Amino acid sequence: MKKLLSGVKPTGRLHIGNYFGAIKQFVDLQNEYECNFMVADYHSLNFIQDKKEMQELIRDTVISYLAVGLDPEKAVIFKQSDIQAHTELAWIFDTITTMPYLMRAHAYKDAEAKGNEVSVGTFNYPMLMAADILLYDPDVVPVGQDQKQHVEYARDTAEKFNRIYGEAFKLPEALILDDVAVVPGTDGRKMSKSYGNTIPLFATREEIEKAVMSIVTDSTGDRPEYVYNIHKLFRSPAELENLYEEHKGKYKALKEALIEDVDTFIAPLRARRAEIESQGDKVTEVLAQGKEKAKTIAEAKMEKVREFVGVTL
Amino acid sequence: MKKLLSGVKPTGRLHIGNYFGAIKQFVDLQNEYECNFMVADYHSLNFIQDKKEMQELIRDTVISYLAVGLDPEKAVIFKQSDIQAHTELAWIFDTITTMPYLMRAHAYKDAEAKGNEVSVGTFNYPMLMAADILLYDPDVVPVGQDQKQHVEYARDTAEKFNRIYGEAFKLPEALILDDVAVVPGTDGRKMSKSYGNTIPLFATREEIEKAVMSIVTDSTGDRPEYVYNIHKLFRSPAELENLYEEHKGKYKALKEALIEDVDTFIAPLRARRAEIESQGDKVTEVLAQGKEKAKTIAEAKMEKVREFVGVTL
Repeated sequence: MKKLLSGVKPTGRLHIGNYFGAIKQFVDLQNEYECNFMVADYHSLNFIQDKKEMQELIRDTVISYLAVGLDPEKAVIFKQSDIQAHTELAWIFDTITTMPYLMRAHAYKDAEAKGNEVSVGTFNYPMLMAADILLYDPDVVPVGQDQKQHVEYARDTAEKFNRIYGEAFKLPEALILDDVAVVPGTDGRKMSKSYGNTIPLFATREEIEKAVMSIVTDSTGDRPEYVYNIHKLFRSPAELENLYEEHKGKYKALKEALIEDVDTFIAPLRARRAEIESQGDKVTEVLAQGKEKAKTIAEAKMEKVREFVGVTL
Repeated sequence: MKKLLSGVKPTGRLHIGNYFGAIKQFVDLQNEYECNFMVADYHSLNFIQDKKEMQELIRDTVISYLAVGLDPEKAVIFKQSDIQAHTELAWIFDTITTMPYLMRAHAYKDAEAKGNEVSVGTFNYPMLMAADILLYDPDVVPVGQDQKQHVEYARDTAEKFNRIYGEAFKLPEALILDDVAVVPGTDGRKMSKSYGNTIPLFATREEIEKAVMSIVTDSTGDRPEYVYNIHKLFRSPAELENLYEEHKGKYKALKEALIEDVDTFIAPLRARRAEIESQGDKVTEVLAQGKEKAKTIAEAKMEKVREFVGVTL
């Protein structure tokens, strides 16, 4: 079975854009690949600098992924901060990487362009990500079209290390996820936490109503496009054709239909989530089990790397 | 007893400039402080990218320090790469440090000025050094006058972390070593491997003769200043006064006297070094013992840091 490594930064509440853009696909992939699934909390430290918030986000991330169907018996689910080899290998990569090369990374250039005082962690994150990936010898790393560079940095760095010290790393391939960018938000732009145009993945009925009612509608057209575009996620084109023909021009009725469809979709996820939350220390159990498995893999690779660079006598 | 942390990058053969400038003082300090003494091999990776050379340099560094009198019963002697908390904490520091701040570090600016493609590790090394220091709660860090900035970066970073997350780190003080810059080389400039003007600390008689004979002498003066300046390390001013008066103008005789004095000084060091080398796995024994002690200290601190940032649930 081919291997896959994937990670998610716990930085906020998941929404249906995350789900259809990536999470759903991870869940499908766990049947085709030997999966290592990482909660990238050390990457999140660049954004979240509050103990309580960090703890809640980690917990929320694990619960969410379990609720949508990630299975700890199939995939190794672990927390980055539990495996010291990640930051250790990132340092080693720092020593073989030049500043100009790393300064070309998108995330750094974007942050610089915004005029922020960029953190060193934001600058250096492609090296930690290269370590995250290369420790586990994955064949593929699923990413959105706009994240291909992450895998390219990992490949470049693996090649550079192998050239200097010998063949330590397998070169991973990017597995481009479908349609990542196209889940639209309530204002028609890409659904994104930063735009405030999301429908939360585990939304309550009330939250769904509020989000759907806030969808921007264009009073000149027959069909409210932004409503329709979200609706497409939940029904087939043929079904929608009938529905939107039947309720032509009746925006309120169409939004109400969307609310029903979203709620029908989310209700079982909410229930699974509640069930997991009721299981006390399910999250710590899953992470402890994942830590043990991931550590075995990562430490074996790290031991090899230390031998390659000559720090073991 | 107050605590001290010190480190040395294994990058080349030690010379008497290293000895009088720093090492001798470390050896003296182990009686006054609870010492943690680190072989900074992960810093060396920025300069040495060859397995065999790295292994030899690490081994050579440990043997040299033992030979000059560092005592593993008094000081904890350990290898940086044996303690994963160093690179882990460096990453956490990366996330709270801004690019402009780190770009002001001397080593980075110097390397940039030379027009080299600076490695990310060279840029990021003050964060690893801050971690090296702060993991061990030292009261003092011995440094040369020109290395004060290292300790300032560690202090700044400790303060910043403590401000964001709570009091995790003690602020260390720089302990400025005496006369670090003034050991002169055979050409009158500061003794430095990069100038090729050194007398190796464990030099053979032949190496001593060759180095001393190469000392640049100014044929116009009565006293060969460069010979005299090195000679000062081995004899009192009064003794030298007599000697140089007696052999006024006789450069060869004065160099021969210096050869004798250097050899008298080095002979017992050479013997101790040979003895340690004959003891088979003395180096790995010392490092294994140091690893255990250092790891206990560093991991306890790291566990606390992980709790502060919220990655433990």
